[in-house]
Amino acid sequence: MIGRHKHCLALADFSKEEILEVLDLAVSMKEVLRRPIKKVPSLRGKTVVNLFFEASTRTRSSFEIAAKVLSADALNWTASSSSVTKGETLVDTAKNLEAMRPDVLVIRHSAGGAPGLVAEHVACAVVSAGDGAHEHPSQGLLDCFTLRERLGSLAGKTVTIVGDVSHSRVARSDLFALTKLGARVRLCGPPTMIPAGIETLGATVHHRLKDAVEGADALVMLRIQHERIGDPLIPGTREYSKVWGLNAKKAADWLLPHCVILHPGPINRGVELAPEVADGPRSVILDQVENGVAVRMAILYLLAGGVHGAGAGVGAGGEAGRAQ
Amino acid sequence: MIGRHKHCLALADFSKEEILEVLDLAVSMKEVLRRPIKKVPSLRGKTVVNLFFEASTRTRSSFEIAAKVLSADALNWTASSSSVTKGETLVDTAKNLEAMRPDVLVIRHSAGGAPGLVAEHVACAVVSAGDGAHEHPSQGLLDCFTLRERLGSLAGKTVTIVGDVSHSRVARSDLFALTKLGARVRLCGPPTMIPAGIETLGATVHHRLKDAVEGADALVMLRIQHERIGDPLIPGTREYSKVWGLNAKKAADWLLPHCVILHPGPINRGVELAPEVADGPRSVILDQVENGVAVRMAILYLLAGGVHGAGAGVGAGGEAGRAQ
Amino acid sequence: MIGRHKHCLALADFSKEEILEVLDLAVSMKEVLRRPIKKVPSLRGKTVVNLFFEASTRTRSSFEIAAKVLSADALNWTASSSSVTKGETLVDTAKNLEAMRPDVLVIRHSAGGAPGLVAEHVACAVVSAGDGAHEHPSQGLLDCFTLRERLGSLAGKTVTIVGDVSHSRVARSDLFALTKLGARVRLCGPPTMIPAGIETLGATVHHRLKDAVEGADALVMLRIQHERIGDPLIPGTREYSKVWGLNAKKAADWLLPHCVILHPGPINRGVELAPEVADGPRSVILDQVENGVAVRMAILYLLAGGVHGAGAGVGAGGEAGRAQ
Repeated sequence: MIGRHKHCLALADFSKEEILEVLDLAVSMKEVLRRPIKKVPSLRGKTVVNLFFEASTRTRSSFEIAAKVLSADALNWTASSSSVTKGETLVDTAKNLEAMRPDVLVIRHSAGGAPGLVAEHVACAVVSAGDGAHEHPSQGLLDCFTLRERLGSLAGKTVTIVGDVSHSRVARSDLFALTKLGARVRLCGPPTMIPAGIETLGATVHHRLKDAVEGADALVMLRIQHERIGDPLIPGTREYSKVWGLNAKKAADWLLPHCVILHPGPINRGVELAPEVADGPRSVILDQVENGVAVRMAILYLLAGGVHGAGAGVGAGGEAGRAQ
Repeated sequence: MIGRHKHCLALADFSKEEILEVLDLAVSMKEVLRRPIKKVPSLRGKTVVNLFFEASTRTRSSFEIAAKVLSADALNWTASSSSVTKGETLVDTAKNLEAMRPDVLVIRHSAGGAPGLVAEHVACAVVSAGDGAHEHPSQGLLDCFTLRERLGSLAGKTVTIVGDVSHSRVARSDLFALTKLGARVRLCGPPTMIPAGIETLGATVHHRLKDAVEGADALVMLRIQHERIGDPLIPGTREYSKVWGLNAKKAADWLLPHCVILHPGPINRGVELAPEVADGPRSVILDQVENGVAVRMAILYLLAGGVHGAGAGVGAGGEAGRAQ
Repeated sequence: MIGRHKHCLALADFSKEEILEVLDLAVSMKEVLRRPIKKVPSLRGKTVVNLFFEASTRTRSSFEIAAKVLSADALNWTASSSSVTKGETLVDTAKNLEAMRPDVLVIRHSAGGAPGLVAEHVACAVVSAGDGAHEHPSQGLLDCFTLRERLGSLAGKTVTIVGDVSHSRVARSDLFALTKLGARVRLCGPPTMIPAGIETLGATVHHRLKDAVEGADALVMLRIQHERIGDPLIPGTREYSKVWGLNAKKAADWLLPHCVILHPGPINRGVELAPEVADGPRSVILDQVENGVAVRMAILYLLAGGVHGAGAGVGAGGEAGRAQ
């Protein structure tokens, strides 16, 4: 359980306290992940199934490593090789998997709401690893974790999200989590890519990058999807890069000295971010990747009913973990 | 060893006692699988390789979970990415894998007899996970396990198998196992899909569904393969469903109150089974999935030479398993 | 560390002593691999990632089993399903993976030098599992291990490598390792497939198979790549087989009685090797496969900083390994 939640489907449903429960536990998890012997027995005898209907080695690997560090068994079930190609419905697939007694189903799906639909039909915990343009809650949590690590409390901080907000589940999860933690969120991008009425969710909308980043403590540069380039929304990558991308000159001229830069990856180098910015001192992009494992460890631990207490080896003492 | 057998290739070769050895052990395995900490050290240091020349995430996952619950290492080797695409023969592939010292090779292949051929050339144990239209022994065993769980002893019980018997390895394995356990087996389906002379294996053949299910204790509804629909054997799914499918009305009118319904999955909803039957109280389809893991645990345990005795953590006491 | 090396990229860079360090440790590793309970805790809490940009179930499985026998966690990341298809660069992919805190990255790539490029950018150890036509160091080491096992010290022994030397990373790694261990290396194949000036690396070149194998203690028969057949280099497989392949008659007429035959696999039966030679008493091809796991265990152990001493369970005593 994360607070009242048996599942991790959408940060829109999480309270500030529930978000902080994950982030605080993830601090201990990161300490475990950095040990020379990064293995604790917390989820021994638990099974985590990655059920991915969209390819994503990156996110799948993050969950898989998180499970294994906690001593859970991890099983990968990808759609291309699964019964889905035989016409089985999503719910049938999930109920069949559930009958093999996993403790957590991690689901990525191109349809928003798919993990929620599964959660209504199975007894085990369900985690959305990204569903359509709905939410990507573990990404939202790892972004908050990374920001907290760099900026301290997010109360009163300003975070600007730049890019194709309309199609971005990352933007939505970030927006929900950041506002609950007290941050001010600005959205910026081509007008066709900012949903009408998004201000009602607590963000301000800016149509010039310079205005949007002025005084910001952090930027989240969204990934431009290749399949959108050339369609009416974006004429081309050069055009996009010129207006909405961030290069070293804009960063030097426009950003506060302490402003950090996030990106959910993988980066289109030279489109949304110039290489010297992506690899520069403001970038916390690789921190995000590492923190992603820690945050997913926390999510799995809380949802799979990990063994609490010193015996779990998580935390300062951690003797049991090392003694394994 | 399962009785006299070093391999699990075909239930045609198994005696009643050998079948019961697996089913009885699977009862303990199901108890392990239902523990909060579902992990016993029985096969620690053993390696199970899934060598699948046909895609089947469902069966592969069942064997993989079974291996991991018993603490074996599981390795997946799928044909599409293997040396088979470089023209290596089946036996070469298997002998190469064997040289890496696995304890059990689980093989699925489109050619009947392929696992048996491999078994003649390797020192490790071989399990057929379905070979052509020959046999799918673990499916036959899990069907018997599920029926025993619901009906008690199968002696004198009547089980009707409905569908494309000719192309079904499930039907063949069920037929062998059920008759050995004393059940009466009826076969029913389009005449073009019932092999001539199948009665010599101990079944009766019926060409009307109503007659075939009358007085039956259980039905096994076979999956119609999409690739057969539209060929001369089946004009279309609507036609098949009307004559050979089971809907709520037929079930209510024709079946004994206690008659249960099995299906090897994945279901073609609305073809061989109406959704309200597949999800209704007679359906034991998801039990089959769970029992499949338990039966495969028993098979792997017996063939990999699991550590017997209390130390294995299998069975009523199971202290060692929990203490792990 | 293997001697001075944090990575295992190219045997050209290894000294004789560094090669022997791996081979000597692999003797103990093979003993572990042959135990009934083949599991030692040496790399518990370490993570090995297989990052394969070319399909190779065989090599990937060998590294995966090696990792698991040592109790490391193994993660497979294949290019087809990875972010590489989204245009992420090799170094970005590797740096992202590194952020998940693996201990060893095992990389196969079609471009020579790719693993070396990654090694310059990551903090963890990198192993080449074959890069372009550059090197395949673990193959070179397992070939030397297999030869030592059969022939004793390689000093003064003669090893003939036959086939498409130009495109063979195996030939290059063998050549470097064998000459460092004091063997004499002969190269033989179609003139178009022997690189000009290769003699400067310490080999002699022969253009008739009979001359090349005369007095040799071992032959390494290279695999002919299907994609090369029919191109100007090889008119056809029948022609190749007749001139450069080894059949039973040639073997009986031309080879020393103790001469052994190696092949990196998978074999094109009837092309470079006749079946009766591939399966005959001179063949050590399956020993190579088994020894490959042992050699990779040694490589992973040395690079991942395995726990040394009796507690690791590796070696003669091995009580801890068995007690696990």
